[in-house]
Amino acid sequence: MNMRTAEFETWVSRTLQQVEEALERWVPSDAPAGLGEAMRYAVLGGGKRLRPLLVMATCEAVGGQPEAALRAACAVELIHAYSLVHDDMPCMDDDVLRRGKPTVHVQFGEAQAMLAGDAMQALAFEVLTPEGEQVPPALQARLCSLLARSAGHAGMAGGQAIDLASVGHPLDEPSLRDMHRRKTGLLLQASVLMGAACGNTSPATWAALADYGSAIGLAFQVVDDILDVTQDSEVLGKTAGKDQDANKPTFVSVLGLDAARRHAEELRDHAHRALAASGLSNAARLSMLADKVVERDS
Amino acid sequence: MNMRTAEFETWVSRTLQQVEEALERWVPSDAPAGLGEAMRYAVLGGGKRLRPLLVMATCEAVGGQPEAALRAACAVELIHAYSLVHDDMPCMDDDVLRRGKPTVHVQFGEAQAMLAGDAMQALAFEVLTPEGEQVPPALQARLCSLLARSAGHAGMAGGQAIDLASVGHPLDEPSLRDMHRRKTGLLLQASVLMGAACGNTSPATWAALADYGSAIGLAFQVVDDILDVTQDSEVLGKTAGKDQDANKPTFVSVLGLDAARRHAEELRDHAHRALAASGLSNAARLSMLADKVVERDS
Repeated sequence: MNMRTAEFETWVSRTLQQVEEALERWVPSDAPAGLGEAMRYAVLGGGKRLRPLLVMATCEAVGGQPEAALRAACAVELIHAYSLVHDDMPCMDDDVLRRGKPTVHVQFGEAQAMLAGDAMQALAFEVLTPEGEQVPPALQARLCSLLARSAGHAGMAGGQAIDLASVGHPLDEPSLRDMHRRKTGLLLQASVLMGAACGNTSPATWAALADYGSAIGLAFQVVDDILDVTQDSEVLGKTAGKDQDANKPTFVSVLGLDAARRHAEELRDHAHRALAASGLSNAARLSMLADKVVERDS
Repeated sequence: MNMRTAEFETWVSRTLQQVEEALERWVPSDAPAGLGEAMRYAVLGGGKRLRPLLVMATCEAVGGQPEAALRAACAVELIHAYSLVHDDMPCMDDDVLRRGKPTVHVQFGEAQAMLAGDAMQALAFEVLTPEGEQVPPALQARLCSLLARSAGHAGMAGGQAIDLASVGHPLDEPSLRDMHRRKTGLLLQASVLMGAACGNTSPATWAALADYGSAIGLAFQVVDDILDVTQDSEVLGKTAGKDQDANKPTFVSVLGLDAARRHAEELRDHAHRALAASGLSNAARLSMLADKVVERDS
């Protein structure tokens, strides 16, 4: 491990700890009738936390406000985690394993899982709008706007609707891209842009960061599809081969495994070029996060 | 009908039309894969729109910003409507009739219903955070904060979790009150406070409006429980007698029908007294909305 990698890994560990402590603080243990327990089970102590890392790295790259970024990091993770809870339910993917543990509805029942997901979405917006002076109100509003639009009908929820409708129906490559852009890409891109919103950026830097976020958003999904066929469930912490079994279109089924791998590499290069065009002098971590997205094995 | 009532009913019609047109505009018809259709089915052309009326009447009483109030009115209705969609699903109340129509999951399937609800929650926060200058960013943040906190684990979702846990378990009166305060009361109160936030209010006026909102929030539920046993499904537009059949605790089962009716009247008086204490000279519509809550027959 070279010095640059070692410094990056230290930063990752430190940042993950900070995010974990904040989630520990903000996800309630005292919500009524077991709801808090289900929410904490769904959010704490698991997951790669890629989205929070993107928020924090972007905020640092633009010299933004760390308190706002920490809240944005937790909010975006809450949205991601709620979507997994709902996505795993019997009426959706009907999955029993997530992050190496029984899924929330298996552990707490379907009704509680639905409510926990609903409450986690609301909590994301609670975390973004603290009383007091920690985060300027205009920034709170901007963060809510970015998060809501990436999570809603035009973003994640819309992508999931396309996904639902696509089971057993061949999607062509443009449609597959559109689905994934919405389903996972826009929330990953929003992570980058929420980090950027915590500081002052020129329109050109904003556009370059949006381009970076879009490229790694898509790369993330391409790699997900590759791992779904090349890894086993134990390594992934979730049921492998599901998409193939469900006859869902994936980048591997549409492009083939080798072309999917090449495509992931191209997207990494695209992300690096976008960072080079951003004019940011402090983007090394974002660059290494792009590598992490493509090189991950789970 | 006296002149005061006639003027009020004209205001109600005009305001409902305004809210309906805004929802028509903001709830997307073009969300992918049928998602928009399910969202519009769930939100448009039905419901009493009590929450929007509370937002708009309060905003007018405090001389607040109408554009912000219209957005708050639609946002709170979106939260209410999403909660009905999820609440009706088989894993929750398993209901097939709502606002006189098949429930969303009956019409569009469970997965689409869950996604539509999720997207409606996100849309509420999209509506509150428009780009451009219509709503000052600090007010956007304040409205998001009020809405998220009333919808989340400490509010509506928490109340639903208590409700779930209470089936077949006798709740005493304080616990029943706590459940309903969270499940429906806080969102009704938030409707009032979001309207108030659109203008400038003194702390005393704010507190009086919060008191008013709390009283009508509880009154609404007491009346709901009364109607559940005294009206038939056709009048209610939803399945009557459900709570009784499910052996759920209600104000009628805990207090008896006569005492529940007296309690609703007391809460109406409480709401009127709170308005008198508010110092607002323009609170007649809020006063009449309290009457409407208690006197409604569906």
